[in-house]
Amino acid sequence: MAEILPRLQGPQDLKAMDEAQLTQLAAEIRRVIIDTVARQGGHLGASLGVVELTLALHRVFDSPKDRIIWDTGHQAYPHKLVTGRFHRFATLRQTGGLSGFLKRDESPHDIVEAGHAGTSISHAVGLARARDLRGEKHHVVAVIGDGALTAGMAFEALNHAGHLGTDLLIVLNDNSMSIAPNVGGLARYLTQIRTDPAYERMRAELERVLEQLPRVGSQAVRWLQRFKDSLKYLVVPGMLFEALGFRYIGPVDGYRLRDLIRVLESTRSMRGPVLVHVITQKGKGYAPAEGDPWTWHGPRPFNPATGKMEPARPGEPPSYTSVFARTLVELARNEPRLVAITAAMPDGTGVATFARAFPERAFDVGIAEQHAVTFAAGLALGGLRPVVAIYSTFLQRAFDQVVHDVGLQRLPVIFAIDRAGIVGADGETHQGLYDIAYLRPLPGFVLMAPRDENELQHMLKTAVAYEAGPVAIRWPRGSGVGVPLEEPRVLPIGRAELLRSGRDVALIAYGPLAHAALKAAGQLAQEGIQAAVVNARFAKPLDEALLCDLLATTRCAVTIEEHVLAGGFGSAVLEMAARHGLDARIRCLGVPDRVVEHGDPAHFRTLFGLTPEGIARAARELVGAAAPRRRRAGG
Amino acid sequence: MAEILPRLQGPQDLKAMDEAQLTQLAAEIRRVIIDTVARQGGHLGASLGVVELTLALHRVFDSPKDRIIWDTGHQAYPHKLVTGRFHRFATLRQTGGLSGFLKRDESPHDIVEAGHAGTSISHAVGLARARDLRGEKHHVVAVIGDGALTAGMAFEALNHAGHLGTDLLIVLNDNSMSIAPNVGGLARYLTQIRTDPAYERMRAELERVLEQLPRVGSQAVRWLQRFKDSLKYLVVPGMLFEALGFRYIGPVDGYRLRDLIRVLESTRSMRGPVLVHVITQKGKGYAPAEGDPWTWHGPRPFNPATGKMEPARPGEPPSYTSVFARTLVELARNEPRLVAITAAMPDGTGVATFARAFPERAFDVGIAEQHAVTFAAGLALGGLRPVVAIYSTFLQRAFDQVVHDVGLQRLPVIFAIDRAGIVGADGETHQGLYDIAYLRPLPGFVLMAPRDENELQHMLKTAVAYEAGPVAIRWPRGSGVGVPLEEPRVLPIGRAELLRSGRDVALIAYGPLAHAALKAAGQLAQEGIQAAVVNARFAKPLDEALLCDLLATTRCAVTIEEHVLAGGFGSAVLEMAARHGLDARIRCLGVPDRVVEHGDPAHFRTLFGLTPEGIARAARELVGAAAPRRRRAGG
Repeated sequence: MAEILPRLQGPQDLKAMDEAQLTQLAAEIRRVIIDTVARQGGHLGASLGVVELTLALHRVFDSPKDRIIWDTGHQAYPHKLVTGRFHRFATLRQTGGLSGFLKRDESPHDIVEAGHAGTSISHAVGLARARDLRGEKHHVVAVIGDGALTAGMAFEALNHAGHLGTDLLIVLNDNSMSIAPNVGGLARYLTQIRTDPAYERMRAELERVLEQLPRVGSQAVRWLQRFKDSLKYLVVPGMLFEALGFRYIGPVDGYRLRDLIRVLESTRSMRGPVLVHVITQKGKGYAPAEGDPWTWHGPRPFNPATGKMEPARPGEPPSYTSVFARTLVELARNEPRLVAITAAMPDGTGVATFARAFPERAFDVGIAEQHAVTFAAGLALGGLRPVVAIYSTFLQRAFDQVVHDVGLQRLPVIFAIDRAGIVGADGETHQGLYDIAYLRPLPGFVLMAPRDENELQHMLKTAVAYEAGPVAIRWPRGSGVGVPLEEPRVLPIGRAELLRSGRDVALIAYGPLAHAALKAAGQLAQEGIQAAVVNARFAKPLDEALLCDLLATTRCAVTIEEHVLAGGFGSAVLEMAARHGLDARIRCLGVPDRVVEHGDPAHFRTLFGLTPEGIARAARELVGAAAPRRRRAGG
Repeated sequence: MAEILPRLQGPQDLKAMDEAQLTQLAAEIRRVIIDTVARQGGHLGASLGVVELTLALHRVFDSPKDRIIWDTGHQAYPHKLVTGRFHRFATLRQTGGLSGFLKRDESPHDIVEAGHAGTSISHAVGLARARDLRGEKHHVVAVIGDGALTAGMAFEALNHAGHLGTDLLIVLNDNSMSIAPNVGGLARYLTQIRTDPAYERMRAELERVLEQLPRVGSQAVRWLQRFKDSLKYLVVPGMLFEALGFRYIGPVDGYRLRDLIRVLESTRSMRGPVLVHVITQKGKGYAPAEGDPWTWHGPRPFNPATGKMEPARPGEPPSYTSVFARTLVELARNEPRLVAITAAMPDGTGVATFARAFPERAFDVGIAEQHAVTFAAGLALGGLRPVVAIYSTFLQRAFDQVVHDVGLQRLPVIFAIDRAGIVGADGETHQGLYDIAYLRPLPGFVLMAPRDENELQHMLKTAVAYEAGPVAIRWPRGSGVGVPLEEPRVLPIGRAELLRSGRDVALIAYGPLAHAALKAAGQLAQEGIQAAVVNARFAKPLDEALLCDLLATTRCAVTIEEHVLAGGFGSAVLEMAARHGLDARIRCLGVPDRVVEHGDPAHFRTLFGLTPEGIARAARELVGAAAPRRRRAGG
């Protein structure tokens, strides 16, 4: 069906096309994106929104000589398609296939890699300054959404760019959404600009008048200049950006190709930092997505003709997220101090469920993880019990706030850490592999991981009952194990659960891999190796009594976690053993020291030995290696 | 000399005072602060700048019922003095004495604790929202500097406050400085407001005119409304804040007590978020500090009469910072790609030295650590070799940027991490105790720590020569060891240095504690224990060959580091030993799982066993404990 796209050699081909051809290309791009995402899921709405903008940018600028930087990168499917990846596009987000985000390995047109929002202006300022210092000549363009602009680091970068005065183009891709509707004073401000129909007429008229005002000297000059500035605010709706040192141009309709090209073309000769405000719509050109951009941000597979999404597989266990959300609502009925916070991910984190039940007690702060955590600290200081619901990878954004604003003051903030572990299709920028390592060193923290969705309920109840300081609970993306859901109960802090006894080796698991450890113990038993299985429950405080006793018997242990090995749960066990002078051989299973790309989590779990077979193998080797030493020690 | 201050019971006493008394009290407060800081050093300029503002706030609001939050807290000496801490003020920043920042343990008037900038608005929004949900009635006030306002999280909080519309007062304490002169488009914008003498006259006149403009209906209404808005921008210099949803009031002279009190009083009845813009001056009332606010931000002890600071002790070794700065300048002469970045700490980090030699190649981005790191990533992508010079504690602010923008893309950014370890008088918010734990899990990072200022030179040269990915070098606050400075040379990556051989125990040190380990080995030798001493140099990659060989001989080791034990260098050694199945007894020395307060670093090092004696003691115990096992194993 696509005619132009398969023959496109690269973005340079766009320069020879007329408007009709570009319009047809836009339609072809939309079709390919819709069909591909319909088959396998992925990000949809953001990419559909920027098809024309992508074409205009690649028409006006010379990528990769000119650097076009896409913030976050989940809106860059059109960019992928016009930069030589049409024929591989069906592999999107599959193991070994194209990344769902930008990837420098994939194309010289992918200037930076990102999956977290708000980084592009900083990258652009750096690239622009490097260009200047090296005496190079090319354009640097960052395309950033209005959602990403609520991230503090984007403001830091705007502030610095305004200071440097470097030549730089920011394209504000304003669709009035992050994943959910965008939040904040800034969003309201942009809406004011966007919704003013009188704007275009006024601008033309008043710019003419302003040009004709005389430049006067002496006394009156200051007043008149101020009056001109004042009139300028009348015609320059982007005064907020002008105040920071940018030249503001806009708003521009993101679907009028001719206008887009003309405006972008005009910026090529401008000096200093320029911001072009482009109005777009998430899901543009696909009616179901236009009507419900929230749901269609990242749909599961669907029928492109009807817009009907595939249902969850029947009999699939509930997701950890949904169990968390439901439990939180239940607990909140008896605990009026309980409040929930999300940083622009109400659906992904389950806070949306809580918000429906308790609208006054749910807060979406925008893409602003730092503020989310310190805001929670303030709520806790004010006598409430805040739950920060956040993905492991995004909590990294607020590490200092966790240390400095929550940890040092031992405030009873609960961190509900979703997507902890291997995340699958979203890939390396979204892996939740570091949270144990960066939280475990903080004094006063309690760290838990449930072995299944049932225990998640208990842990949440435990966290709410615990008032002495911060608590973090981590759980993985996706479905639970499928165990029955009991009535939530409070667990004793720092106490592990012995799931199975055994004298030859201890399998100590943190999180749902406890179930894999149980299976491994079953396999080992058939070989005559008696493996104890521990569901650690707590990475901090560790159940030292139980673990030391057990290690005194088994004298060898395998630790198991879905987290990097450096500084993870296994290290906590090693540290404990060293502190107690235990003479035990410990093997740590987890994610090795490498980047984990996008792809099927099962593939990576197998690769890293985080399966019943992998655990049994490690235990077998350990018991075998320990045998000679035992004989020495025993004889 | 002070008459009012010694008799002040608390801030409530201010309410009965007349202006003359308040003015005298302000003078007394200045005197006490100057004399105290003159004796022992500390923060000076910021506190002198806000004496009147502090009195006005405590006069108008009812602390602690009304919550007054001081951003960062180093400007809160006047607040300490009026809230009952005059008689303990001489203990400021001493071991066991008053903290140099706010401390909830010290006073109910200290609402939150902070040492990092930009957190106060988030705290305030949280406290205000908690108040609303609990149906309480009181005011929430955050006092934030214009420097702290460049921190992205402050913008995130403004954005959210504008969205919520909660009653809240932000006092912008605008002294046009962070520690160095403030940076950015925002600073320029504030300067425009500040320096306009016509402002007050204009406002009065135009507000009258505006009031008289008719409210018309129908067609013309929109245009006229816009015109009125436009005129409002003429009289409302704080349009940037208004755009975000705040009511802006100001600028107000920070030294006219009557005006300050009147304006603050007027805000008590206002609804929604309000920002009062107060113009202050760092060092106000002390001529030397007024003349050079940069130097007098945190002076060493000085003669209050002359303003002459005590010289560095003669014969004191150069600081690590100064050796870093000098070496960086030397290396930059032959490496034109080398650039340096600081987040508002040009002096503290040594970047000021670099900036004097290469003004075009040094960047102060403001209090904006996140942007600093991703900006560096952009510079690296653009072909330069950026060095991010930053304190360990502040790099926490940019953890996600380190992971996501530098680490995942293996960009050759050099992190020059100063103040790594125990920092002394600044206390818990400034301790540099987590950087190994949060950097070691990241794939592709090289982590180093020099044993002394001479090796720091080599490591910096090594980092510049290494192009394959990010490098982080950590070193402590203060003076070097006093070793001769050689010509810098490139060290082999991942190779440790055996400082002394020995077969009984291995002392493996990371950083300057290697010198303490050498002394410990000397003590042990006198007892007949032969200790090997290793200067590890690299926490990642570890010198596994050297360490495994050594452990195979000694079969026991002490690891030594100035960092928390959880996930630190010692854990790296434990992980290595576990991975190789080494049968070795390892004891880790470092900072235990507790908050480390302000005070003499030597005090804490002794407490944690990080001294020659402590290391020798640990080694002795280990060798003693290992002996029986050896006999078993040997016989």
